[in-house]
Amino acid sequence: MERKTQIDAADGKQELVITREFDLPLELLFKAHVEPGLLEQWMGTKVLKLEGKKHGSYQFETTDPRGNKYGFNGVIHEFSPNRKIVRTFEMENMPFGVQLEVHEFEKLTDGTSKLTMHVIYESVAKRDQVLKMGMTQGINMAHNRLQAVVSQLK
Amino acid sequence: MERKTQIDAADGKQELVITREFDLPLELLFKAHVEPGLLEQWMGTKVLKLEGKKHGSYQFETTDPRGNKYGFNGVIHEFSPNRKIVRTFEMENMPFGVQLEVHEFEKLTDGTSKLTMHVIYESVAKRDQVLKMGMTQGINMAHNRLQAVVSQLK
Repeated sequence: MERKTQIDAADGKQELVITREFDLPLELLFKAHVEPGLLEQWMGTKVLKLEGKKHGSYQFETTDPRGNKYGFNGVIHEFSPNRKIVRTFEMENMPFGVQLEVHEFEKLTDGTSKLTMHVIYESVAKRDQVLKMGMTQGINMAHNRLQAVVSQLK
Repeated sequence: MERKTQIDAADGKQELVITREFDLPLELLFKAHVEPGLLEQWMGTKVLKLEGKKHGSYQFETTDPRGNKYGFNGVIHEFSPNRKIVRTFEMENMPFGVQLEVHEFEKLTDGTSKLTMHVIYESVAKRDQVLKMGMTQGINMAHNRLQAVVSQLK
């Protein structure tokens, strides 16, 4: 069965609920979100900073084929291993504002797990702009890479 | 003229917009939000930690008349002096979740300034719970204290 990332974007709301099931044990799914070496592979970004702890912060950077750099950063409000991360997220120099993200990690069976991302935007308009950028397809592709990359650790 | 804190709570939205004008220069209004000694006076909380910088964090604590302690904490996503603070905020051990707050500080005249707090909740239900707690009156009282305490520094 091919798995796919689901995005629930209710009309007129300033939030998204993104869910994906993985053929990975919970611990590996969580590891993929906190180990810089793994993150870089599936997100395709350079990890300049990642403090995986309560009141920590992170800074990522991607480079496009022309050499332009794009920064992403945020702070980590809550960090509960194998369970939950609450953080802020911002694409720098973009008009999307700061978003609040609640990531929940859940064991389904010994070899499968589920990620639920609740993403809250500053406004409905900002959420809709992010959706228009092709975020839906982008996150599904990233999650496919996560599955492929982390499967090799099993 | 007696000033009052205005709260705009649109029906069915998971956000609030709180505004207040102060008879204080912009710099003093901002100072009231970042100097532990001043914060403690007008918020009535003990400041256990306050890192006033990008990717900093804070921890406050109040004690009720019976000696029960209540914690508040969050991380600072953006810190632009005299202009803007973006942070998370959480009342610990309470069912209100984590909120994202965008505080904007604006000069009106040399002696007056305006605070706009855009507060975004995890859900409409959580926002409504906070409103029911009497938050409207509480914040107006706190802002009255801010005006009184900081006026003495002019």
